[in-house]
Amino acid sequence: MTDERIELAPIGRVESPLTDPAAAPKQGDEGAPDAWLVLDTDVVAGLDGIKTDDEIIVLTWLDRAQRDILGVHPRGDISRPSQGVFSTRSPDRPNPIGLHRVQVAEIDGERLRVHRLEALDGTPILDLKPVLSANVSER
Amino acid sequence: MTDERIELAPIGRVESPLTDPAAAPKQGDEGAPDAWLVLDTDVVAGLDGIKTDDEIIVLTWLDRAQRDILGVHPRGDISRPSQGVFSTRSPDRPNPIGLHRVQVAEIDGERLRVHRLEALDGTPILDLKPVLSANVSER
Repeated sequence: MTDERIELAPIGRVESPLTDPAAAPKQGDEGAPDAWLVLDTDVVAGLDGIKTDDEIIVLTWLDRAQRDILGVHPRGDISRPSQGVFSTRSPDRPNPIGLHRVQVAEIDGERLRVHRLEALDGTPILDLKPVLSANVSER
Repeated sequence: MTDERIELAPIGRVESPLTDPAAAPKQGDEGAPDAWLVLDTDVVAGLDGIKTDDEIIVLTWLDRAQRDILGVHPRGDISRPSQGVFSTRSPDRPNPIGLHRVQVAEIDGERLRVHRLEALDGTPILDLKPVLSANVSER
């Protein structure tokens, strides 16, 4: 990695019943609960156009991950051979950005409730994006 | 946004024939060319397990984007009403992280050639992740 540094600022936080990394589901579709995305007031204008039932992509900062690891046993299963982190979804990686595809259940001002999010309570949110239609004319 | 700052370091760079933001395709499946992902030598071990033909997700830092914009006309089309940036894929947003799903065409040490990437030449790479199987037992 180069000496270049890039600076991000969270746009909000996750509020979730999940607090224990060891007990949290590894992916949203593996039994994760609903969670709230709580945006900072100065970026709320960026939500305009997001509607209930939309599928969105949430990028988070996995602030409890280790950044100095390049090889892991997939899914923490030591019976599986170690692989490079870039071929796994391990939170441990040089830039631990979480990628979550979720559906919007409810919007209340700067708060969005989403279904099945595996991020832990307090996780910083970096960005939200729409899931793109496969049809270019609908983008 | 809070005063909290998060520091990332690029893991590599994009080498692409695309150099002009105005002329670049907006998404990979809109006519983007092949490009090389050139990883820094100290993170190459993280590639172990990635194979030719794999579909991967590339996260980039869109270093030519504007970060102080919360509303845009989708696809730069001023005939469309302005929307919040989080409901669009505009590069202009508070944390301009690019999300690209591509297929690996060739691996040569720390260099990966991928199909149809719309990122510009020189774009910093932040992370690589596998596309997950819908089948949990195959993860």
